[in-house]
Amino acid sequence: MVATRARILNTSSELFGRQGYAGTGMNEIVAKAEAALGSIYHFFPGGKDQLCEETIRASGRIYLELIEAVLDEASDIGQGVDDFFSGAAAQVVATDFADACPIATIALEVASTNEDLRRATADVFESWLNAASQRLEQAGIAPLQARRLSLFALSALEGAFVLSRAQRNVDAIDAAGSYVTAVIREALPRSRRQRREPGDEPRN
Amino acid sequence: MVATRARILNTSSELFGRQGYAGTGMNEIVAKAEAALGSIYHFFPGGKDQLCEETIRASGRIYLELIEAVLDEASDIGQGVDDFFSGAAAQVVATDFADACPIATIALEVASTNEDLRRATADVFESWLNAASQRLEQAGIAPLQARRLSLFALSALEGAFVLSRAQRNVDAIDAAGSYVTAVIREALPRSRRQRREPGDEPRN
Repeated sequence: MVATRARILNTSSELFGRQGYAGTGMNEIVAKAEAALGSIYHFFPGGKDQLCEETIRASGRIYLELIEAVLDEASDIGQGVDDFFSGAAAQVVATDFADACPIATIALEVASTNEDLRRATADVFESWLNAASQRLEQAGIAPLQARRLSLFALSALEGAFVLSRAQRNVDAIDAAGSYVTAVIREALPRSRRQRREPGDEPRN
Repeated sequence: MVATRARILNTSSELFGRQGYAGTGMNEIVAKAEAALGSIYHFFPGGKDQLCEETIRASGRIYLELIEAVLDEASDIGQGVDDFFSGAAAQVVATDFADACPIATIALEVASTNEDLRRATADVFESWLNAASQRLEQAGIAPLQARRLSLFALSALEGAFVLSRAQRNVDAIDAAGSYVTAVIREALPRSRRQRREPGDEPRN
């Protein structure tokens, strides 16, 4: 039972992320998840809206763990941000430009049409921003600037996903990653900055 | 006749931009455009796909003219980029967080599902990137760096639109605009840089 529920959420996350909320039918989700239509309404009695909200929150938590892991495993925050953009580019290529941000497509669709779902996307973005801000603060950046840097970095990542999926190349993710990393390194207190390697800087 | 066609395209641009391609029905478009259902198939015999492709290209041209006008009217390219982000924030607020990028919602929906529409969104993004790159080159930046700066700036803007619509505030657009403007000013040849005012820099 738990396995079926998890399989439904995995499938809905993939389909909503790739083709959006309105473009994905419940029948398509159960077929791909190899579940019965009845089981989807058993686990999600509120129907598509409930499934979508739980999908947003579940994939938001998975992506949060990824953000935390990549930033924490790096030697410093600048490297962590650089690694995150590189990993995102690799994932986009590996999925033939299908899987980028799990919630952005839904976020744009529902922002003006479904208040519960909009709030779920806002909560998820907030959790990602907090994770990034915390780590920027730990690296010695003042709270207000850490918040603004996180908003800037997440904006650049989300927009680069839009461009990369549309253009079917990762030029936007590469460019955004280079400049965001450079801005974050510049914002670190001098004592915390790592020596810069040529590859860390935006190429001219 | 021309007026009806234009009214349909205005309406489809607004509805596709706000709620996406799959979430917008032809009936909803004709009702809001005060047109007959027959007229939409008269002007767009290819149906919803044709209407959507023409909508993407038409709203892409309008936004291109806006990009060109704002960048060309400013005293320098840094100010122009700053003005563009400020104007975008004002527009998002004025429309109650509904109207941001006219094609991003569709771009994410169709990237993996409709090759003709994906190509239309890629063409439009390319036209915006070219307009920005040209102006960065005119300001003395080398072509490859101008291209990368344009990809970075458009990514930051597009992602800030996603966050701002979801969060119902313009913090992301403000933050992205400040940092992108600062990066572009930094990239200008020294002789072309304007004296910086305190408000031009990311706040700490």
